[in-house]
Amino acid sequence: MAAKLASDAKGVYVIAATPFLDDGRIDFESIDSLVDFYLKCGVHGMTILGVMGEFQKLSETETLDVARRFIQAVKGRVPVVVGVSNPGTTQLVRTASKVMEAGAAGVMAMPIAGLRTDEAVTGYMGSVLTALGRDIPVCVQDYPQLTGVYFSAACFLQMVDTFEQIVMFKHEEAPGLRKLSAIRAACDGRARRYISIVCGNGGIHLPQEYLRGADGAMTGFAYPDMMVRMHELFSAGKAEEAEDLYDKYLPLLRHELQPGIGLALRKEILRRRAAIRSNAARAPGPRLDKADIAELDRLLARLERKLAA
Amino acid sequence: MAAKLASDAKGVYVIAATPFLDDGRIDFESIDSLVDFYLKCGVHGMTILGVMGEFQKLSETETLDVARRFIQAVKGRVPVVVGVSNPGTTQLVRTASKVMEAGAAGVMAMPIAGLRTDEAVTGYMGSVLTALGRDIPVCVQDYPQLTGVYFSAACFLQMVDTFEQIVMFKHEEAPGLRKLSAIRAACDGRARRYISIVCGNGGIHLPQEYLRGADGAMTGFAYPDMMVRMHELFSAGKAEEAEDLYDKYLPLLRHELQPGIGLALRKEILRRRAAIRSNAARAPGPRLDKADIAELDRLLARLERKLAA
Amino acid sequence: MAAKLASDAKGVYVIAATPFLDDGRIDFESIDSLVDFYLKCGVHGMTILGVMGEFQKLSETETLDVARRFIQAVKGRVPVVVGVSNPGTTQLVRTASKVMEAGAAGVMAMPIAGLRTDEAVTGYMGSVLTALGRDIPVCVQDYPQLTGVYFSAACFLQMVDTFEQIVMFKHEEAPGLRKLSAIRAACDGRARRYISIVCGNGGIHLPQEYLRGADGAMTGFAYPDMMVRMHELFSAGKAEEAEDLYDKYLPLLRHELQPGIGLALRKEILRRRAAIRSNAARAPGPRLDKADIAELDRLLARLERKLAA
Amino acid sequence: MAAKLASDAKGVYVIAATPFLDDGRIDFESIDSLVDFYLKCGVHGMTILGVMGEFQKLSETETLDVARRFIQAVKGRVPVVVGVSNPGTTQLVRTASKVMEAGAAGVMAMPIAGLRTDEAVTGYMGSVLTALGRDIPVCVQDYPQLTGVYFSAACFLQMVDTFEQIVMFKHEEAPGLRKLSAIRAACDGRARRYISIVCGNGGIHLPQEYLRGADGAMTGFAYPDMMVRMHELFSAGKAEEAEDLYDKYLPLLRHELQPGIGLALRKEILRRRAAIRSNAARAPGPRLDKADIAELDRLLARLERKLAA
Repeated sequence: MAAKLASDAKGVYVIAATPFLDDGRIDFESIDSLVDFYLKCGVHGMTILGVMGEFQKLSETETLDVARRFIQAVKGRVPVVVGVSNPGTTQLVRTASKVMEAGAAGVMAMPIAGLRTDEAVTGYMGSVLTALGRDIPVCVQDYPQLTGVYFSAACFLQMVDTFEQIVMFKHEEAPGLRKLSAIRAACDGRARRYISIVCGNGGIHLPQEYLRGADGAMTGFAYPDMMVRMHELFSAGKAEEAEDLYDKYLPLLRHELQPGIGLALRKEILRRRAAIRSNAARAPGPRLDKADIAELDRLLARLERKLAA
Repeated sequence: MAAKLASDAKGVYVIAATPFLDDGRIDFESIDSLVDFYLKCGVHGMTILGVMGEFQKLSETETLDVARRFIQAVKGRVPVVVGVSNPGTTQLVRTASKVMEAGAAGVMAMPIAGLRTDEAVTGYMGSVLTALGRDIPVCVQDYPQLTGVYFSAACFLQMVDTFEQIVMFKHEEAPGLRKLSAIRAACDGRARRYISIVCGNGGIHLPQEYLRGADGAMTGFAYPDMMVRMHELFSAGKAEEAEDLYDKYLPLLRHELQPGIGLALRKEILRRRAAIRSNAARAPGPRLDKADIAELDRLLARLERKLAA
Repeated sequence: MAAKLASDAKGVYVIAATPFLDDGRIDFESIDSLVDFYLKCGVHGMTILGVMGEFQKLSETETLDVARRFIQAVKGRVPVVVGVSNPGTTQLVRTASKVMEAGAAGVMAMPIAGLRTDEAVTGYMGSVLTALGRDIPVCVQDYPQLTGVYFSAACFLQMVDTFEQIVMFKHEEAPGLRKLSAIRAACDGRARRYISIVCGNGGIHLPQEYLRGADGAMTGFAYPDMMVRMHELFSAGKAEEAEDLYDKYLPLLRHELQPGIGLALRKEILRRRAAIRSNAARAPGPRLDKADIAELDRLLARLERKLAA
Repeated sequence: MAAKLASDAKGVYVIAATPFLDDGRIDFESIDSLVDFYLKCGVHGMTILGVMGEFQKLSETETLDVARRFIQAVKGRVPVVVGVSNPGTTQLVRTASKVMEAGAAGVMAMPIAGLRTDEAVTGYMGSVLTALGRDIPVCVQDYPQLTGVYFSAACFLQMVDTFEQIVMFKHEEAPGLRKLSAIRAACDGRARRYISIVCGNGGIHLPQEYLRGADGAMTGFAYPDMMVRMHELFSAGKAEEAEDLYDKYLPLLRHELQPGIGLALRKEILRRRAAIRSNAARAPGPRLDKADIAELDRLLARLERKLAA
């Protein structure tokens, strides 16, 4: 079993797709091949059942089955973080307990839609964190583009000071570079305990985020191998080289970031890279049409040419 | 088993609360007493597992257990409509099939959050209605205050013309009196087949809605007996008497309509009326404080005085 | 000239309509008759160029012309508060200065759309309040249903502690009864300086708000005479009588509260009460159709019968 | 005077900044230098007083003064489109008439916030277009990220079929590539009259948009010279070269796209390129801090290195 998620976590925690068969059933064999793919890419961790993992379209039983299959396939080689956000706190806690028993390294949760102020966010997250208890390491996800819930850096710091189980912050408010800087400065290991900051939002500002003190990436870009190499370069102090590499992929990364259709594009690339067998997303979900495919073909061809140059 | 929901449905389809024990577990015995209470109130139908039924906080298993208990307790005396809205279409259809097998009269579904145009709404609802098939009668819920999804009367009519399984429209856009008039005029049984229109949104404009052609109410106001009596008066052509009765309850009805806290107020009144044992809502959910209770006490005392006068 | 707005303000600060001619031009003569009407109703203050005053549809010149006409007509008999919210701070301050010179008692401003956290709200309001300076009394409007901006009670208290020019809080978040209680308790004249709290949101919870410590109403309900009488009764400790009176108007008050069409309904009632000559709202604005008029006729007839009883 | 805006318009219609002095006053001299800069960049048109032009922070007088100064400086060399969106239709039409008299080629307008359905959008836009009349060419802006108003391609086509004064569509819904394809296919000059489609949203998908049939760009990216060169390459059938050029600027373009701070970044680059004297935005507006400046310095240095390579 992998060690628990800790606040010194660094690197690429790839957001894993959930593979489906064309008929919508879960493709468990593709979970195995996808894990192999991610591990070959060198990822430092894996986050499953996030938004890109279509967690909302799975029943409770399916959620646990998928989580267990991922964890078994990973065999403790890297930490597996499991998204457990849920409209009901009871369900959230039950899922969290079961995946931790199954070998997860930690869980990820975000404030529920409808919270309007920092006060409401700390109220909600406080009750969730209390219910989860101190033994389950938590990554707090900040994804207002999806939830409509915005909270300030000060609000997050208040949570950090109250709940030791918070070890990681998934930063993806946009624009949010200053918020990242503020949290990094406040959680620097001296003024306050260190918190791992990993960046989502498709990685669209990832080099800038590294330079502002991020510890890594937590996103589903279909080339995690690039992100791993980029992380190594940043870690070695080679920021310009890191960003040169990143810039080659930026046109595709930007293309994948489109809400909705982006999921279909990512799954199609993962399929082409032989990581999964079908690009199917569960309904309601996006499907690529001929123009979308031609556009993707062209962008992939351009990437190959750049990499070859 | 009750007959299936049909487009000539009329009357009060009360939105049922889901009773919980103080510790958050489902209170199945209170389902039985709640059903008794509603039937004694004279309701013409029951809608379970709607928003007020906290459907989002139940697991799939719990959803089915609750639905079956309600249906068993009702024993076919009135139609039971089951809310099946779900982020995943597969789950939605699975729940719908199982509750229909268990004896439900029909299901209720609403467009999923994130749909931006009429085109997107008909696309989504079309795929859901196709997946449900022609044999499951459907009530389409229009609740943009919750979902953020707005659609026009024309959009609904297009669905009606394509999907014969739509038999009922749950109207609760606010403001929405003109939309009700437009749909009533279009679905009048001559220009187009008749569709039952029932009104939600706490009943805050219910007399006006009856006068514009609504067929009934579908809301969770804790005095369904008043709504039943009001329906009888409207049906007998006694609109002024009907509204006189309604107006006595309006201060409380308006008070209950408050989002969030309204659920706690309703459950507290149901508890005082001996319909359920606990006013508990599942987390995250509202709780009444001392000021809330005193306020409610006073409003209830005022209601009693008015009724006694 | 009327005294400046102060934190001990109490009573009904009616939100004034801006009268237009049928062709959309400002109807200055109706400003005079409207002022007469409001003063005869006994209002304790007047708030002009608020949302109901269609402030966004006036040019800067028109804004000043309308403000001056109202102030001249009032002749210092009651304080006139002028809404000055504006996307540009320069324009906001310029308008505020000019209306204060013209004899306004104070100004009303609200956080601009797009502010996401308490921190952002205090940042924006702080810069506006600093630019306005200490000599202009300010009523802070809290109307998230319109702006999408939510802030906590704690956020408002921070503003109160920093900016002495804040003397009044226009409460209209919904639901918001607990926020009112929190601000009342904190600004009680002992723990912190007293702030006048007046309630908007159409007055839909006005009796409850009085009982939780509100100082008055600031809304455009077309029967300010009722609100004045109700205020007197509450001030005399006759809460039940006050609410009995209110309850007679509640069906109409609730009907007027509908966003959009509500403005047209209010202007039509003001026209019928001979306060203004035309019910016209500037484009884009709502217009009543035949069904709307018939509905209003009936509700007004019901009100008359209740008052006669 | 420049010819009027026509539906065969092609190329780069740069969204012009409005230059301010550090104290917030309009910097008219910088309008002249900015026009020189844009014209030297080779732009095919200019769009002033758009969102990036901070139109909402100008009084009506300032709006006209700024528009006239731009138009005079341009001296008819390229068409000038003027943003006239306004909460009041009267003001909108008055501004439109005055800028057309002053020599504008056309106006740009968008649906007002609060419209919920296609029906509401066509209702609002229909009344605005009718009030503007047939003689003022109109560019319809589709910017839901700002307004919250979404409309379908079918809705736009209905407007095109009714109002001949619509000659241009400013596409910036995101994601929106399929909408662009749908409108292009429908307005192809055969099935329906041709409409010029220009793309905003910072240009983040500009090459893909060209390949889907866009006629040009309408965005404020601070390197319009790049966009002009790219347009020429696309027009010459050199799509790969065009996108190679674009890709060099993509890191900066993506950085500038950040809402809020993006305006400050653009104005700072324009200042560095000697197009304007101050990077000031009017309050409430973003300001760059030290970290923002260092980040920008680095990105600009990287761009220079790429261009030199």
